[in-house]
Amino acid sequence: MASNLEAILAGKYPAKDHARKVAAYLKQKGLKDDGVIYLEGQKTKFIEDNDSEQPFRQRRFFFYLSGCLLPDALLTYHISSDELTLYIPPLDPDSVIWSGLPMSPAQAKDTYDVDKVLLTSEINPSLAQLGSQVGQNGVVFSIQGQISDSTDFVPFPNTDFLAVKTAIEECRAIKDAYEIALLRKANDVTAQAHVAVYKAAKSAKNERELEAAFIATCIAHGCRELAYHPIVASGTSGATLHYVNNNDSLIDPTTNKRKLNLLLDAAGEYRAYCADVTRTFPLSGKFSPESREIYDIVLEMQLETLKMIKEGVLWEDVHIAAHRIAIKGLLKLGILKGTEEELFDKRISVAFFPHGLGHYLGMDTHDTGGHANYEDKDKMFRYLRVRGNLPAGSVVTVEPGIYFCRFIIEPYLQSPESSKYIDNDVLEKYWEVGGIRIEDNIHVTKDGHDNLTSAPKYADEIELWINGS
Amino acid sequence: MASNLEAILAGKYPAKDHARKVAAYLKQKGLKDDGVIYLEGQKTKFIEDNDSEQPFRQRRFFFYLSGCLLPDALLTYHISSDELTLYIPPLDPDSVIWSGLPMSPAQAKDTYDVDKVLLTSEINPSLAQLGSQVGQNGVVFSIQGQISDSTDFVPFPNTDFLAVKTAIEECRAIKDAYEIALLRKANDVTAQAHVAVYKAAKSAKNERELEAAFIATCIAHGCRELAYHPIVASGTSGATLHYVNNNDSLIDPTTNKRKLNLLLDAAGEYRAYCADVTRTFPLSGKFSPESREIYDIVLEMQLETLKMIKEGVLWEDVHIAAHRIAIKGLLKLGILKGTEEELFDKRISVAFFPHGLGHYLGMDTHDTGGHANYEDKDKMFRYLRVRGNLPAGSVVTVEPGIYFCRFIIEPYLQSPESSKYIDNDVLEKYWEVGGIRIEDNIHVTKDGHDNLTSAPKYADEIELWINGS
Repeated sequence: MASNLEAILAGKYPAKDHARKVAAYLKQKGLKDDGVIYLEGQKTKFIEDNDSEQPFRQRRFFFYLSGCLLPDALLTYHISSDELTLYIPPLDPDSVIWSGLPMSPAQAKDTYDVDKVLLTSEINPSLAQLGSQVGQNGVVFSIQGQISDSTDFVPFPNTDFLAVKTAIEECRAIKDAYEIALLRKANDVTAQAHVAVYKAAKSAKNERELEAAFIATCIAHGCRELAYHPIVASGTSGATLHYVNNNDSLIDPTTNKRKLNLLLDAAGEYRAYCADVTRTFPLSGKFSPESREIYDIVLEMQLETLKMIKEGVLWEDVHIAAHRIAIKGLLKLGILKGTEEELFDKRISVAFFPHGLGHYLGMDTHDTGGHANYEDKDKMFRYLRVRGNLPAGSVVTVEPGIYFCRFIIEPYLQSPESSKYIDNDVLEKYWEVGGIRIEDNIHVTKDGHDNLTSAPKYADEIELWINGS
Repeated sequence: MASNLEAILAGKYPAKDHARKVAAYLKQKGLKDDGVIYLEGQKTKFIEDNDSEQPFRQRRFFFYLSGCLLPDALLTYHISSDELTLYIPPLDPDSVIWSGLPMSPAQAKDTYDVDKVLLTSEINPSLAQLGSQVGQNGVVFSIQGQISDSTDFVPFPNTDFLAVKTAIEECRAIKDAYEIALLRKANDVTAQAHVAVYKAAKSAKNERELEAAFIATCIAHGCRELAYHPIVASGTSGATLHYVNNNDSLIDPTTNKRKLNLLLDAAGEYRAYCADVTRTFPLSGKFSPESREIYDIVLEMQLETLKMIKEGVLWEDVHIAAHRIAIKGLLKLGILKGTEEELFDKRISVAFFPHGLGHYLGMDTHDTGGHANYEDKDKMFRYLRVRGNLPAGSVVTVEPGIYFCRFIIEPYLQSPESSKYIDNDVLEKYWEVGGIRIEDNIHVTKDGHDNLTSAPKYADEIELWINGS
């Protein structure tokens, strides 16, 4: 697998295929005449009141049709002639002295899957020529707010600054083999980084040491950027879904004992493609009884819902299935009371599993094409970032969790409508568990799915890693 | 020293003192009437086309008068009443569910050296009241481009959106004991990170592994952010002053041998204060003869110029002294030919030491108050970021270097005017050295200086670290 992966990644990113997919989408949505897609890469930006550059993050729409990570580049794609042109910044002699030689047009032509490489200084003459070729109903497609003031679209009879954004967003939802390889590579590095954290878990004294182990492993293996700000949450902070501090002691200051669990939601980015992986593990190397009970429910939520995933499955059904397993599990532990149906109908499990089961994943951690409905009146579905049937080729995270978060559960305890379903005395034993989430990245296929995530996730296996065996 | 340092840092950042310093500067520059300083902290910003926040970097002008690292905060300082007020964002109930409780006004009052804490929603009523107090010639001072549209300055007879920026820039050049403690702390962590890289040097195969070791050590010890993008440059890349890739093999692909040296310019940031440290070391654990020759010259450039540093020294003189030592050293090696005076007058050493000897350091890596003159016709001084006499309390980097950079040296070799001073045959042996720089952070005092940088820098000492002894 690994050598096959490297073989795919040694080839070019399929920019030309992506341009054709986007053009086909535009035609399907009604484009009858010729057109040109014009996209700008992200610009070099400076830190405010400072002479250093901001960390560079390539604009995803541009990357999808170019595979190019250079700042300040542009592209055009002429639909009828199927010609994809990349424009790179001209050489600045002053900057060569300090920064060395930049990529030349010839090198760029060798590196990227484009037909032609020109300099950005040639863009307006190039647009003038393209404008003369598209005919009297021709359109230049670009993205509102991502067009330089100096760009001249006057040669084009029509402009459309909305359609191509939607088109790319929809096309991005279905990944090709190259994109799957990129996501798998990001996951392979991420798995190594999670293992590095397991190994550091017992000796670490502060969350930041575990974040350090994670980030170092990503960087050492080629993921210079993380996919997102990591969550390194110890003890009850694991119940804070957007915990960002990553700077707390692993010892509880009141009891002077080691906190129970650490929730690590962290992943690397590889050439603009993101992994998104969560693991939860015991800081002592051994799950407490309550932690293990919850862990087993969450793992079952994941393993059972994974079995449902293949082309065409309705994502709401998968999300519901996860809730039903949570309900059964929490009933068995005595945290919940009542019947499964009643608990489901009253949405009581939302108190413990408040977020969606997962989201699309790609160049963004929360990738495009999910069609969420954040206005949904039903709180079980409001935060679901994907709605409807999953197409083959999509990549979705499957990340069930159970959390003991006072800000979320206490309103349920205070309302007589819902408090009767929760056994406060039993619940009392579980607050210290914090939150448990298990998250993998799943490639949806015609007959089932591939799990791209290789980080160890079975409880016994995790304990062995932490204990160094 | 360490415990003294922690004792200082356990106290509050001296925001009030800074506000008074800035007000005194404004008065000295002509302010006769009452005034209010109004500053905004950096806002929460999102990544383009993405639902994640950008990495947060507090606005330095705001931090200097508040010590507050919260996003979206504001401050006012009423000059005549000496009242400093911090405004923090109100609690957002929706966000508590996901992110937990934010800092309360009472906690903020305990944490920061301010007289009063209000909510940002109270800013306009507060400005109205302040406006009514400043009298008919009163002024509100703020910074152009850093004022929200909703901020209402109508209550003030006069506005000045320039003076306070300059005032803070000038005040920042002189550090107080608390700021020195922050810079020392950033340096202590940075020193540990440099040592971690020494230890990893012999086994690493790629620059990125050394960058990883550096960053991990910074994060694990509390410097979550780096002061600047690190330079991890192996072999001849050490001559590229703004090398950023940090992703190259440590083995030369043509000779299949380990590259000679690694230049590491990297440092941590601690609570908005930056270290800036460069070390150069042999990847084999033993300097090659040519590398050691150059290393010894650069170290002499540093040690000798450090001796000159005390209150009032003219920075140009220090820079010149470094050049003269470089000239003598390169003459002795036979790389340069001619007399010291002639080589100095013709600016030949600039080919090997093209940048300035150092810059102010503080909340920015290239800190404010240096009064550079980038238009200087004399290329020996054009890139000098500090001009004039160093005041006591300033912190300056001392970072001599000698580089074998083809883009810089070749024009000298091609011109008959300068080529006669360089022995091409001798030079040929040194290209592989790449570049050598040694950089420390120096606190200028009345009678001399304190070196804040503790990373090992003597050649024998470095070799011992790399060889694990």
